[in-house]
Formats: sequence, C-alpha cells, structure tokens
Amino acid sequence: MISEFDIIGRYFTRPARSAVLGVGDDCALLRPRPDRLLAISTDTMLEGRHFSAGADPFKLGHKALAVNLSDLAAMGADPRFALLALTLPEANESFLENFSRGFFGIAERFEVELIGGDTTRGALAITVTVIGEVPQDFALRRDGARAGDDIWISGSTGEAALALANLEGRVQLSPAARAACEERLHAPEPRVELGGRLRGIARSAIDVSDGLLADLSHILEASGVGAELWLDKLPRSSAIASCANTGIAQECLLAGGDDYELLFSAPPFKRAEIDEVSGDLELALTRVGIMVPGEAKLALRDARGEPVPLPRKGYDHFA
Amino acid sequence: MISEFDIIGRYFTRPARSAVLGVGDDCALLRPRPDRLLAISTDTMLEGRHFSAGADPFKLGHKALAVNLSDLAAMGADPRFALLALTLPEANESFLENFSRGFFGIAERFEVELIGGDTTRGALAITVTVIGEVPQDFALRRDGARAGDDIWISGSTGEAALALANLEGRVQLSPAARAACEERLHAPEPRVELGGRLRGIARSAIDVSDGLLADLSHILEASGVGAELWLDKLPRSSAIASCANTGIAQECLLAGGDDYELLFSAPPFKRAEIDEVSGDLELALTRVGIMVPGEAKLALRDARGEPVPLPRKGYDHFA
Repeated sequence: MISEFDIIGRYFTRPARSAVLGVGDDCALLRPRPDRLLAISTDTMLEGRHFSAGADPFKLGHKALAVNLSDLAAMGADPRFALLALTLPEANESFLENFSRGFFGIAERFEVELIGGDTTRGALAITVTVIGEVPQDFALRRDGARAGDDIWISGSTGEAALALANLEGRVQLSPAARAACEERLHAPEPRVELGGRLRGIARSAIDVSDGLLADLSHILEASGVGAELWLDKLPRSSAIASCANTGIAQECLLAGGDDYELLFSAPPFKRAEIDEVSGDLELALTRVGIMVPGEAKLALRDARGEPVPLPRKGYDHFA
Repeated sequence: MISEFDIIGRYFTRPARSAVLGVGDDCALLRPRPDRLLAISTDTMLEGRHFSAGADPFKLGHKALAVNLSDLAAMGADPRFALLALTLPEANESFLENFSRGFFGIAERFEVELIGGDTTRGALAITVTVIGEVPQDFALRRDGARAGDDIWISGSTGEAALALANLEGRVQLSPAARAACEERLHAPEPRVELGGRLRGIARSAIDVSDGLLADLSHILEASGVGAELWLDKLPRSSAIASCANTGIAQECLLAGGDDYELLFSAPPFKRAEIDEVSGDLELALTRVGIMVPGEAKLALRDARGEPVPLPRKGYDHFA
C-alpha cells in the first residue's frame, strides 16, 4: 500500500516556483509583494453533499480548485498559491492520478502553485485554501455597492442546478442540454480574468455559489442598499430557455447555485468599459438590474415592471 | 434550526483587528509586512481517526488550532491568522458554543485572528489553515541541520500515545498519570514562544507530531545528514517513567506522535543561549543526540553507546 508520504511525494509535489519553500516542511514560506494585499479563502467539498460517490476524480480535482479560484476572482485577486487538505478512504492510485491531473490542469492554467496540504484517511473530503494578490485599494468587496449602480452578471446562471434537477428526475433534458449542464456542474470555469479586469470598474462583486438571489442579497446586506432585478433581462442559456418545466428552470436561474459566475455592481458611466471587457474576454456581461436607496431589500420585476414573488433564495447547508 | 450564516455570524465572527477584511466576504484581505515571510500550514482532524465520537468540543476547538500553531512554531514563525473549515453532522448549538470557546481561547492567547472559513454538513471534520510571519532568513527549516549539531527536544514525548494505550487497555495508568497523559492528548500546548526564541539559534526544527524517530528522520532526509540519538538522555515524564509496561512506554516515547514538542538542531556554541531560553520559558530543553556526517540514517544508542534496535518509526495514515 502506498504511504501518506508517497502520496504527497508522487502526486502532489511540484518544484516551488515563486514560493520560497513549497511542499515538504512544517509550513510553506512565501515572500509577499509589498504593494499587494493578500486575498485568502477556503472551501470544502464532501462526497454525498457536494458530489456523488463515484464522481469523476479528474473533474473533482478541477472543481475543488475552481470553486476556490472563483472566490479570488470575486475579490479581483490574481491567484498565486493553494493548499490541499485531502481525506481519502483509501490510497487508490488511479483516483490520485486522475484527481491530481485535474487539480494541476487548472492550477497551471492560472499559474497557481500548490505549496502545502494534509492527507488523512476517512470519507472523501477535499478542502482547498487559496491565496491571491490584489493591488491595494482595488479589491472588489461586497460592501461597496451604491444606489444607482448597475447590476451585472457574467455568463448565465442555472445550468448546474438544472443538471441536478435532471439527475433527480425532476426535469427531462435533451442529451445536448444535459451534457452542457453537467459540464457546468462538474467542471465550472472560474471567472479569474474577469475578476482582474473589473478592478477599478466594479464597486462590489460576489461569485454566484449560493444562487443569484442569495448572493445578490449578500451584497445588499453588506452595502446597505436595495436592488431591483429584472427577470426578463437575466441571461438564459439554451438549456434553461428550452427546458419544458419553466417553473424549475426559473428556480434554477434565480436560486440554483454552483454557477461561479460573477455578480457585480458598477456606476453607469462604466458601461462602455464593461462592454469592452466583455468583448476582450468573449464572455457575456449582462446588465440585469439597478441598486436602489433604502434598506437591503430585493425586488424582482417582470418585463412590465410588475413585482414577481421571490422563490427560496439559495442553498443553506443547515436549513 | 440555526442556519449556516447564523453559525458563522454567532460563533465565528470577531471584529478584524489587523486584517484589512475578516470573515464575511469572498476572501479575507491581509496586508503583509514587507520585511517578513509568510509561513502557512494546514491540518485536518477527523472524528474516528484523530479523536473519538463524543470528544469534549472545547478541547477539540483548542486542539484543532494548537496542532497548526505547532507547525508555525516549528518554522520559527509568529502566529497571525487562521481559517477554519468545519464539517458538522448538525448545527448543535452546545457543541458550537464550546468548540468556539476552545478555539478562541487559544487564538486569543497567541493573538491569532480568525479571518475566514467554510461550514458544511457531514461527518465531523475540522481543517484549520494558519498563517504566521517570520523575519526573512530566520525561518527554521528541516533542511538546515549539519553534522556536529546538537539535537534538542523540548518538554518530553510519549504521554499522548500513552493516554491512547491506556484507553485501549494496553497499559494501566494511575489516575494521576492518566489525567496528565489525557491532558497532553486532548489539549496539547504548542511551543509558540520557543519557536520564536529559536530564530537565530537553531539550524533546523520540526514539531513532533508523527513520533520522535519519524520526525527526526524527516530532518535527516531534508538535511542529508545522519544522527545518533541517546536513549537514556531522552526526557521522560513521570507517567512514562513510572509505566509498568516498559516496552510500551518506550514505544510511546520514541514513536508515539501527537506530542507537539519541538525537535531541533543547533551548533554546540549555542548551548548557553539555549539553556537561557529554557530558563526564561520555564520549559525543559534537553540535548538528546548529535548529527553525524553521511547518509540520512538514524542510530539509537543506549547509555553504554551500544546500538538499540529501532521500533516502528511513527504514524502513517495509509500504512
């Protein structure tokens, strides 16, 4: 049986590039740049909660890092380093081989160094901690939104949740729609470049992991503003738009979660700049509402401006 | 039922002190000091592996941070920040209250700020990531030992493992010995002040978590030196010294693990300084061997200098 130290040595040790010291000591050592703030976040994925038993290990490795990079993107931070705490039921070499390929595939694409971690034996669980850098005064916080800001969303929401609804038999998707939605669920793409480009443009930002309404509410609460969200303007992927069960499709769109798009606010005079970013990145950026004065309340409106009742807001592990 | 956001808000949110931004955004934000390296480490504790079901939540909160602070101490780093990824089977408020008191008790003693984390639902698991600072060129690495260095150990080893042996019925301890050993097992004291004082004194250091022999071997492999370890010089607590089963006591002493003492090497001309540190901290620091030239091999010797066979070296989660 392969040992704990062999697992780390064989699958998770790459030479340190910019770290002073990487995997293999009591701590990793980093030399931060003096003009940058460090942005740090951590996220856990559990078998049976965030993914099913038998999930593709390559995609698990990808997603475990992707969801954390999404937090850095939402802060406007450039990814630099990651730590991986991996709990495994057994030292399965095929799992480790594929998991590490998925992990390092996205790590190398975004120039993230794995600098440390921990390996323990138990039910499959993955906790990743990421560290990024952001120039001082340019971090995209949740508390910066102001009344009058446009509300923007990247890409589109709802497909990951629609994949789950299909797996649970609550909707019936076409093979093409199903493939598109499952790719969003299992191999999300963090909006890292977008986060970097929004520095100096967006006043507030969050990544959509709990669901569009829930995450917008987090911005409202932190910023002390209200919002109007325009239902008909929300970008819909073809899978969402063509779903026969429009009730479930709309719930996925508004409250699905696991989207990893960026939801952000910016003053109206930034519209041209944002359109330019959208063109450069070949990524849809859609204006879907406006921040309004007053308490942190969210109003959803249809195409005629009429209020639409709000569905449940998002996912809560303990609700 | 209390929600995920209430758990974070009620039990794990304290005002940011030196962090630019603490709990509550996509990332925490830190402003590092220009003349310091950052030291980072992460460790997971699982129910059924690192602790038993029904373990005292106050002590779990303490230990989850303590074992990570021990890694910073072994690097000579001053603790600054922590992130907590907590997986809970249910939002039990009594558990959360006591766990967070244990966590913040040691956090405040060592001026550690909790700046972020994640809460998920599942089998009880705790992953803590810690961040400390160390002046450039003063980090205590594993690869700095040289032939001729004295080998030192703080405190004494073996009591945590002896507590486990007692719980498993392999030894019978007196009530006093049992209490002392269980305190070491469940509420270890990280040698944070010692780590700081050893900067500029020790050439290499590691914390004893896998067992004295295993952790000394890590230094030998990283440094490319051998070692002689003097069995009769190893400090023995009264519980270890008075244990009727001398075979098990010796195995605990050498290979028990979970000790969180610092094992370090230093050149002989530092002996007086090390004795002074010992006096200042009221912590035994004992010279227990010497680094020798040649391959990374460890020789254990008795009082007459005769070789003693090595027991199993330490704990491996996948062995």
